[in-house]
Amino acid sequence: MFSGAQISLYPMSDNFVDIILESIKALEPWRGQLRVETDDISTLIVGPPEILFPAMRDLFVAAARTGVHCTMHITASRGCPGEPDDPICTPTDTLPPGTALEQRIAQAQARVGDAADTGQTIAAQFSLYPLGLGHHMDEIYGCIDFLKSSGTFEKSKNFCTKLRGDAGAVFETLSQAFTSFGAQAGHVALDVTVSANSPSKI
Amino acid sequence: MFSGAQISLYPMSDNFVDIILESIKALEPWRGQLRVETDDISTLIVGPPEILFPAMRDLFVAAARTGVHCTMHITASRGCPGEPDDPICTPTDTLPPGTALEQRIAQAQARVGDAADTGQTIAAQFSLYPLGLGHHMDEIYGCIDFLKSSGTFEKSKNFCTKLRGDAGAVFETLSQAFTSFGAQAGHVALDVTVSANSPSKI
Repeated sequence: MFSGAQISLYPMSDNFVDIILESIKALEPWRGQLRVETDDISTLIVGPPEILFPAMRDLFVAAARTGVHCTMHITASRGCPGEPDDPICTPTDTLPPGTALEQRIAQAQARVGDAADTGQTIAAQFSLYPLGLGHHMDEIYGCIDFLKSSGTFEKSKNFCTKLRGDAGAVFETLSQAFTSFGAQAGHVALDVTVSANSPSKI
Repeated sequence: MFSGAQISLYPMSDNFVDIILESIKALEPWRGQLRVETDDISTLIVGPPEILFPAMRDLFVAAARTGVHCTMHITASRGCPGEPDDPICTPTDTLPPGTALEQRIAQAQARVGDAADTGQTIAAQFSLYPLGLGHHMDEIYGCIDFLKSSGTFEKSKNFCTKLRGDAGAVFETLSQAFTSFGAQAGHVALDVTVSANSPSKI
């Protein structure tokens, strides 16, 4: 299993370089459990899902607390057949293979309910791509059922679902969507945008 | 067939609102062929692929010409079984169903070679998701073969491919990746980031 994310932080400010450099200090407590590589478009973080999402939450919350309108884009992937297995990615917390959709939804709901608040409200939208499956829409519709009962659901949009809430609950919702739907050891990708302090509230 | 994109433009400037409002005027010549809806995270544009990509190119080039570091995120989708058919999306320019991979690659290469220059250099990275297929990696590897010979290829990264070149060739490469790979009337999504004027050139 290989899992990780390409992430890009966008502070809409003349001071964007300093805000990015200051915010990435929030990744320090997580660095021992992640592999990190940066270029001019994005930063790759490789590690198990239960570390990836809290690390991304802390990075984004640090940027959002500046009060500047910030967004972050995340391309998350697990189980890609083109990537090598990596021991750093081994998840410690998974349901047994073949667990029924209803049970996966119930556990995902419970985990979001248990997420600690950060005090930072954010919006998010994302698309779930379960790959290599003939019945991919069943898993997508199952994920949408979970989202509608997650407490973070805002609305359905073309191609994606929009969330809003405390960053703790929103990132836990994204983590559960990533790990609970699609084949358990299969190829799943997420396309995620998170946003804070937008001057447009629609 | 339904095709469209959720797009978000991010100018890294205190003046981001004005740059966005000025740049979207570049969509005006395309509006008659598109349906457009905006909220606080993204703007939906619905239309055929051969209109979507030139329209997004013109929007991004207008923002990049300010000289400000700008990025744009695109979630593009075609053929999603959860979306209704829409006559506005009907492509006018497609190969016959069942066209062999080699022929699709050759046509895609030719189209990128014919793309007009804009004079604006950009970087891009994207992931192709052919959904509902058991053999999705064959289409992804075929697309990578095309990219490597497209003239815009920069490097392979985990989960995505990075491009660099004139915005004309780069957006044509993205358009060809979107339409030439995956089942012809099937469900395909792209997760794209484009970037200009970055202070980090890696």
